[in-house]
Amino acid sequence: MTTLNVELAERSYSIYIGAGLLSQTELFQRHIQSKQVLVVTNSTVAPLYLAQVLAHLQAYQVAQVVLPDGEQYKNLQHINQIYDQLLAQKFSRNATLIALGGGVIGDMGGFAAATYQRGIPFMQIPTTLLAQVDSSVGGKTGVNHALGKNMIGAFYQPRCVIADTQVLTTLDDRQLAAGLAEVIKYGLIRDPKFFCWLEEHLSDLLARDPSALAYAIEQSCRNKAEVVAEDETETGVRATLNLGHTFGHALETALNYTGLLHGEAVAIGTCLAADLSRRLGWLSRVDVQRVVDIFQRCQLPVALPAHLTPERILDLMAVDKKNLDGKIRVILLEAIGQATLPVNVDQNVLVETLVHYGRD
Amino acid sequence: MTTLNVELAERSYSIYIGAGLLSQTELFQRHIQSKQVLVVTNSTVAPLYLAQVLAHLQAYQVAQVVLPDGEQYKNLQHINQIYDQLLAQKFSRNATLIALGGGVIGDMGGFAAATYQRGIPFMQIPTTLLAQVDSSVGGKTGVNHALGKNMIGAFYQPRCVIADTQVLTTLDDRQLAAGLAEVIKYGLIRDPKFFCWLEEHLSDLLARDPSALAYAIEQSCRNKAEVVAEDETETGVRATLNLGHTFGHALETALNYTGLLHGEAVAIGTCLAADLSRRLGWLSRVDVQRVVDIFQRCQLPVALPAHLTPERILDLMAVDKKNLDGKIRVILLEAIGQATLPVNVDQNVLVETLVHYGRD
Repeated sequence: MTTLNVELAERSYSIYIGAGLLSQTELFQRHIQSKQVLVVTNSTVAPLYLAQVLAHLQAYQVAQVVLPDGEQYKNLQHINQIYDQLLAQKFSRNATLIALGGGVIGDMGGFAAATYQRGIPFMQIPTTLLAQVDSSVGGKTGVNHALGKNMIGAFYQPRCVIADTQVLTTLDDRQLAAGLAEVIKYGLIRDPKFFCWLEEHLSDLLARDPSALAYAIEQSCRNKAEVVAEDETETGVRATLNLGHTFGHALETALNYTGLLHGEAVAIGTCLAADLSRRLGWLSRVDVQRVVDIFQRCQLPVALPAHLTPERILDLMAVDKKNLDGKIRVILLEAIGQATLPVNVDQNVLVETLVHYGRD
Repeated sequence: MTTLNVELAERSYSIYIGAGLLSQTELFQRHIQSKQVLVVTNSTVAPLYLAQVLAHLQAYQVAQVVLPDGEQYKNLQHINQIYDQLLAQKFSRNATLIALGGGVIGDMGGFAAATYQRGIPFMQIPTTLLAQVDSSVGGKTGVNHALGKNMIGAFYQPRCVIADTQVLTTLDDRQLAAGLAEVIKYGLIRDPKFFCWLEEHLSDLLARDPSALAYAIEQSCRNKAEVVAEDETETGVRATLNLGHTFGHALETALNYTGLLHGEAVAIGTCLAADLSRRLGWLSRVDVQRVVDIFQRCQLPVALPAHLTPERILDLMAVDKKNLDGKIRVILLEAIGQATLPVNVDQNVLVETLVHYGRD
């Protein structure tokens, strides 16, 4: 087991990474300070891992919420199902919420924990690669709104993150690739050596070599933990973690949170950000091609869905959280391994990129 | 103008108290750091004060949300109306939200600000006595759930509070009395001299003597600011501000947030807490009578609505935020001017109090 710490003073916590952690009762009990525990999961994960988690909790008053699986259910209406259960069970402010699932469950469970009685303790047990390397770490919680992705939310840190690499064996290939999109992101924004390692070992990762996966998860979490420790509430460098996400979120919203997985939308968005960086004179054509190539080797999409117009995407980008006073701002690349802070971009150049990537 | 400070390190802010502050443009502009401003108010306050506030904002991109007036609308469904407007206007994370109204508007505006894009700046402009002395100060925001009052929320501090005492002239007598219930609370929990002053000057307050009202507001806000500075997220002494509220919230929930104003429910609840304190051997009959008397002089209710059974109230008290592991805990009085921290109470004694106060 590897333990990484997210250093946030009194909100600090550990990320545990290793094979078989879901069977370690002690790890659960160490982080539960109350008698009441609510497990939030979804209909895909529940048959696979819920019983294993509940087995550790026989000494507690336990309740569960099983939500439908999918980004399209990440909304206030489904958060209400969690509140309903917490209140029906008369759960107190010291109750612990366990989010067992992928990024959607982590975001929803975290937001419910942040807002139930103005905040109760919670634990993240990410069951997808994407959640293990990105969304479970750093305390971003929230839900989507019909007009914008992740528009409702809170910064709220978990008590711990338990990333059992064993669970990745049940992940389908598409989910694995979507997670790799966020792994690749860390290389692109701040870790050029890691990016080179990824280029070299991508086939090991796609073949689910356990040690390659463990290394990639550790490096990703280490990068994320460092950025979050430096800038918890995204007043500066944390925004770089959003490389590709301004485009990506607009795509997800345009498609009503169906059709593209989050990591797939980020892959497309990152290709667009790389192209835009080239048009602004920062990135070479060769480097843009390296970005596109690595996503393509993962079988990730690298072009816009055909029916989306540049106007529609621009309109949705106008509500991104990085914007100020309504002006669109995006993260760009100054090099492979170095991202910019949010940059106001000339709308004409943005349109050129959108048109270029809309052709395929 | 009196300025009080709530000392919370980087979240510190000022409470401005005085007659005519709503006409001071500078006060508004000093606390707005962006071009986008959303004013949230209700249908009672809008005709009275919205134009006056908007007059200061002609240089900004301004939007407004006018909600229906009443505690029964303080729910997620109506918070959604605020999100809808923020997104329809493409408001960014540096937009400012102004909550113009009583406690309900302050709680809802604050919660929307806390959760839109994980937090945008907001200002409190309380227009009722209750909001000026209590709910606008301290950063408690949130909404009700059908199963419990204020069960969904966040701690989120405003950038400033502007309490214009002039607005109290348009307040109806019932609202004024409800506000006095919270004023009296500060005397009861930590300021025995202030309680004596209130007993002496209650008729001046009921006659809306401006200097008496200003003094009462200042003393209330000073008390509140001191408690909040000591314990922002209610891990200790802040809970004493909840004197009478465990009973009060249960009553409000039982009545579906209609029928009793919040301050009225608190008046009843405080009488019950005083009675319970006597039954446990802390408060004398004479002191309990002082508590009941001062509320009665305000024409506030001091007994339970006839149709509510002790069982129903107990059931609702079981989801109060002060509870731990599902056990009911209430704030009691050790003396006039001194409250306890939350206390586990023998359910039989609780029932005695509920039965006793249900007779009237």
